Amino acid sequence: MTELKSYIRDIPDFPKKGIIFKDITTLLKDKDGFRKAVDQIADKYKNENIDVVVSVEARGFFFGSAVAYKIGSGLVPVRKKSKLPFKTHSVSYQLEYGTDTLEIHQDAFQKGARILIVDDLLATGGTAKAVADLVTKMGAKVVGIAFVIELVPLKGRDKLKDYPVFSLIKDEYC
Amino acid sequence: MTELKSYIRDIPDFPKKGIIFKDITTLLKDKDGFRKAVDQIADKYKNENIDVVVSVEARGFFFGSAVAYKIGSGLVPVRKKSKLPFKTHSVSYQLEYGTDTLEIHQDAFQKGARILIVDDLLATGGTAKAVADLVTKMGAKVVGIAFVIELVPLKGRDKLKDYPVFSLIKDEYC
Repeated sequence: MTELKSYIRDIPDFPKKGIIFKDITTLLKDKDGFRKAVDQIADKYKNENIDVVVSVEARGFFFGSAVAYKIGSGLVPVRKKSKLPFKTHSVSYQLEYGTDTLEIHQDAFQKGARILIVDDLLATGGTAKAVADLVTKMGAKVVGIAFVIELVPLKGRDKLKDYPVFSLIKDEYC
Repeated sequence: MTELKSYIRDIPDFPKKGIIFKDITTLLKDKDGFRKAVDQIADKYKNENIDVVVSVEARGFFFGSAVAYKIGSGLVPVRKKSKLPFKTHSVSYQLEYGTDTLEIHQDAFQKGARILIVDDLLATGGTAKAVADLVTKMGAKVVGIAFVIELVPLKGRDKLKDYPVFSLIKDEYC
């Protein structure tokens, strides 16, 4: 069995010098790699009665959609400013390379909904924490936050200590 | 059985005055609506030996990922300029509200690959034609282009006459 990690491609100096970018497109395009990644997340949460998967623009959608489909839940996108057409709640947060604002529809889910957040990469954890805090403030329960890759040395898991975190690939040497 | 169309929400004057935006997030967040949409596209192509689903940033990913998962293919993202980290081919094209450039990785699939393009909306067809032509030029076979919603009066299907087009919801009165 091919290890999931072997499907990931390292791209040096992207998006800027000194960063080694984890390219997941080499996993996505491979039907076995893609299926394994989705199945491993879905298997973890299939009995958790997840109402909706909340997924973060844009790479989060690559996995969030298929995971939502597999576990039989709905999909709620968290998007960049001004992309969502209806009334939104928004959150601003610190990125690795600046700040950003994300939005979610106010009617994305009901109070008490059981939420799984899916994203591709856990780096410093800023995005995931912003989204998890926002969803919690809206009255939902974050059952888990699942990532395909976790860059362990960046300690994003510490920032997410209030939530159950799951990752498929732990990269210790980023 | 709820008609798929009833899950779509019309948003007047988004993104600008005079446009009625088709909001698919009300379909996505509903597990039954989401499942039906994905299943209906997947059922159409499940015996077509699709190698990869090519999906267009960002709303295309909502459906492309789950369809790829369901039919057992890989997923290839077409993204806005400078988002993909490896060597790309690019295409520029006319949008309803301006022009845009999209990119795909040069190694996204092999020559002769059988491709299904998935996007949320067929309006004038400019985006889909640009992507289908690019993929064809790269040596792949476009087996189909599937949309969740087709805005019939905008005649996007005419622009895509070289390719087999499939849509789930035909909106005659947009």
